[in-house]
Amino acid sequence: MLNQSSSLDLMFQALADPGRRMMVERLSRGPASVSELAKPMTMSLPAVVQHLQVLEASGLIRTQKVGRVRTCQIEPGALQLAEQWINERRTLWERRLDRLGDFLAETAPENEPEDQS
Amino acid sequence: MLNQSSSLDLMFQALADPGRRMMVERLSRGPASVSELAKPMTMSLPAVVQHLQVLEASGLIRTQKVGRVRTCQIEPGALQLAEQWINERRTLWERRLDRLGDFLAETAPENEPEDQS
Repeated sequence: MLNQSSSLDLMFQALADPGRRMMVERLSRGPASVSELAKPMTMSLPAVVQHLQVLEASGLIRTQKVGRVRTCQIEPGALQLAEQWINERRTLWERRLDRLGDFLAETAPENEPEDQS
Repeated sequence: MLNQSSSLDLMFQALADPGRRMMVERLSRGPASVSELAKPMTMSLPAVVQHLQVLEASGLIRTQKVGRVRTCQIEPGALQLAEQWINERRTLWERRLDRLGDFLAETAPENEPEDQS
């Protein structure tokens, strides 16, 4: 089993490609077969399959073959993990800015004389 | 100027490395010099500098050299762009699940006889 850091490596790597993001975009609207996913793409079917393998290995999607049709769908938990990682860092930074703002407000002279020059 | 898709490529690519994520993690607590960032890392200073260049090119951090010291800090807007992209996809998917749940609730027989077997 992958630890969380390796999972994030694979997920961010998977999201770093515009074609793969387009597939995630499509799948966020509902499950789709491989050929449905390939239709709007300007790449060969084997290339689409390869991108889907990267997405599946990252945990962002799962696929299931029924008869001759492979259907793909989003794994929302994986998207959430990536989102949460970024959100926590951004929140830490914003809290730091808030504290800095409070500090500046507290230490500012209350009735600073205006500069009349 | 980079378009949004190329920016996302570079940002997700930058976040796909555990060492670079550790640097973003550190910087989300406040600005730091290159040597402060390098201290907890198990890599050479040139390797740290190379990772920082990737982070800076992605727009996730900015650096400024004053005298002999280069200071790095987070660019919160870039983190927000990446977070927003994921959030929008996840929200789409969740809304779809909600609609599916509503549909199932509406079409379910109201007083289904219990199976007594």
